[in-house]
Amino acid sequence: MQMLIFRDSVVESVGEGVKNLKPGDHVLPVFTGECGDCPHCKSEESNMCELLRINCDRGVMIGDGKARFSQNGTPINHFLGTSTFSEYTVIHEGCLAKIDPKAPLDKVCILSCGVSTGLGATLKVAKPKKGSSVAIFGLGAVGLAAAEGARISGASRIIGVDLNPNRFDQAKNFGVNEFVNPKDHNKPVQEVIAEMTDGGVDRSLECTGNINSMISAFECVHDGWGVAVLVGVPTKDAIFKTNPMKVLDERTLKGTFFGNYKPRSDLPSLVDMYMNKKLEVEKFITHRLPFSEINRAFDLMLKGEGLRCVISMEE
Amino acid sequence: MQMLIFRDSVVESVGEGVKNLKPGDHVLPVFTGECGDCPHCKSEESNMCELLRINCDRGVMIGDGKARFSQNGTPINHFLGTSTFSEYTVIHEGCLAKIDPKAPLDKVCILSCGVSTGLGATLKVAKPKKGSSVAIFGLGAVGLAAAEGARISGASRIIGVDLNPNRFDQAKNFGVNEFVNPKDHNKPVQEVIAEMTDGGVDRSLECTGNINSMISAFECVHDGWGVAVLVGVPTKDAIFKTNPMKVLDERTLKGTFFGNYKPRSDLPSLVDMYMNKKLEVEKFITHRLPFSEINRAFDLMLKGEGLRCVISMEE
Ligand SMILES: NC(=O)c1ccc[n+]([C@@H]2O[C@H](COP(=O)([O-])OP(=O)(O)OC[C@H]3O[C@@H](n4cnc5c(N)ncnc54)[C@H](O)[C@@H]3O)[C@@H](O)[C@H]2O)c1
Ligand SMILES: NC(=O)c1ccc[n+]([C@@H]2O[C@H](COP(=O)([O-])OP(=O)(O)OC[C@H]3O[C@@H](n4cnc5c(N)ncnc54)[C@H](O)[C@@H]3O)[C@@H](O)[C@H]2O)c1
Repeated sequence: MQMLIFRDSVVESVGEGVKNLKPGDHVLPVFTGECGDCPHCKSEESNMCELLRINCDRGVMIGDGKARFSQNGTPINHFLGTSTFSEYTVIHEGCLAKIDPKAPLDKVCILSCGVSTGLGATLKVAKPKKGSSVAIFGLGAVGLAAAEGARISGASRIIGVDLNPNRFDQAKNFGVNEFVNPKDHNKPVQEVIAEMTDGGVDRSLECTGNINSMISAFECVHDGWGVAVLVGVPTKDAIFKTNPMKVLDERTLKGTFFGNYKPRSDLPSLVDMYMNKKLEVEKFITHRLPFSEINRAFDLMLKGEGLRCVISMEE
Repeated sequence: MQMLIFRDSVVESVGEGVKNLKPGDHVLPVFTGECGDCPHCKSEESNMCELLRINCDRGVMIGDGKARFSQNGTPINHFLGTSTFSEYTVIHEGCLAKIDPKAPLDKVCILSCGVSTGLGATLKVAKPKKGSSVAIFGLGAVGLAAAEGARISGASRIIGVDLNPNRFDQAKNFGVNEFVNPKDHNKPVQEVIAEMTDGGVDRSLECTGNINSMISAFECVHDGWGVAVLVGVPTKDAIFKTNPMKVLDERTLKGTFFGNYKPRSDLPSLVDMYMNKKLEVEKFITHRLPFSEINRAFDLMLKGEGLRCVISMEE
């Protein structure tokens, strides 16, 4: 679970050189950006902007390299390019998607991270065909958004894999129609899935970040045409290992970051999908808390309870 | 280098149930087949026929499971589905591509294996764009056919990687225009290539079968859009290892077998490419020997001299 701070994501004022936004615009702040000019922004395939790509260590504004916040004269670093645990913030315009002002900000705010990540991983990267089979590893918000993408694509078998059986009931609302708990089997989960699907699934999406789950997600796709997409973020020392014959046998391994969506170019159309009732976002929001209870929201997240909690600055 | 036996690849007679061939047809025998009915044959993506996929251990005919050859009553096993080290042979019709009878069999015979493998790996799997950069690992016939594919696709930088510098001169005739010998550098070749190409090549093709070369080929493609294609066949105990963040950063790893060509459906059009002067096959044939000198041909192959040797049954 992640927290999303919501007050009113409305532009208050713009600084020097800002070209595409004006006060009053409704925006979604995103942890990664889109400068529009680098080779990644110009590529049809990449969304990994050279200038504004996620950088957990930066802590300052691109450009003059300084922080915009301070307390009693001591600079306070920016958080993940957005610093949205606050009533007002300063964000690079490349990290702000201008959206339909009619969209309810306290709902579409969840498109700023995990939900778009999972959805795009399926719709833009795995691209399952109608009637195909898809395995989803990890049934948190990211995995369930990936499942939602599979449902929208018309996949007929959506197999959810999770170690936590409490996730299974909820997952039914997201189109998951078969379940595998690796703990229930005494063989690798990729073998279990291969047996269920006559050789493997057509697509798989890894949404746990666990390295063994990544290997299983790759090895459980069908030879000849299977595509596995890694979404979950691994630990620093993780090493992906597989028998190269699994690759030679015409399996594809891909990875994606924020669902391959370019924040400024692509998020507005996800908001439109919501407005046109093509995409439900409400079902991802299992909790709402005021800012004064933000630490309770952290606890919920660490315990893996619920999916997404929206924090409101108002009590 | 591989040997290709050439006498006249012409159908002599057909057995019971053969539907698509008749005596007199000109054919190319292929080590892997296409039954036309299995999920792989019906898939647009796969060429890994369930029934007739390469099987080095089978040694008998699909169907009755018996060999068609014998010496003094002792059965002699089939070799790789084709048994073409002989004047006459018996082959499953699914392993025979019917081709234009005007094509010179002593030239187009080399399309039955490595040349199609390398060419298809580029044209059908890696699919480099016009003006892009491509790295080819291994400049044997397979790698040079992959380079030929890159040249046909309009790639502007074709970087050849080989431990054997004797391969470089010949490679120029196949469009390779930059060269890297890993032995000349004291850092991993993927880093050398990333420095040459501002972060990595757009596509890479691994045509050595060496596991370290496979890892380098994957890690040398650009984040955001790079695609690496494994073609070379690894040893049985090889393990592919990489940092999963290399995948998450939007690199794609694919594998291919016989260039993703379906033998019966696709080989005739490669022969047509040759007949229409869109593809040169002569430059892959560096030696021709009579059958009586087949052991010399093996020696040439083991020493890595030349590319392909065509064996003729006539002295
Ligand atoms: N690539 C990106 O751009 C991006 C963006 C957002 C989140 N993420 C990553 O996506 C992942 C999922 O995020 P989330 O918010 O849905 O997390 P979450 O913690 O809510 O859900 C993860 C689920 O995976 C299950 N799980 C853990 N290990 C497992 C295993 N070995 N086998 C099967 N199931 C297992 C857990 O029980 C849990 O239900 C995280 O790694 C997160 O960092 C990636
Ligand atoms: N996937 C398929 O369908 C298929 C079909 C045919 C051949 N193959 C495989 O393709 C590979 C190449 O076949 P070929 O006939 O061109 O072989 P070859 O021996 O003629 O050429 C291989 C080249 O790779 C070079 N090389 C070896 N190790 C290297 C390393 N670590 N770094 C850089 N260069 C290295 C060698 O010097 C040589 O020039 C083989 O593994 C073969 O089994 C695959």
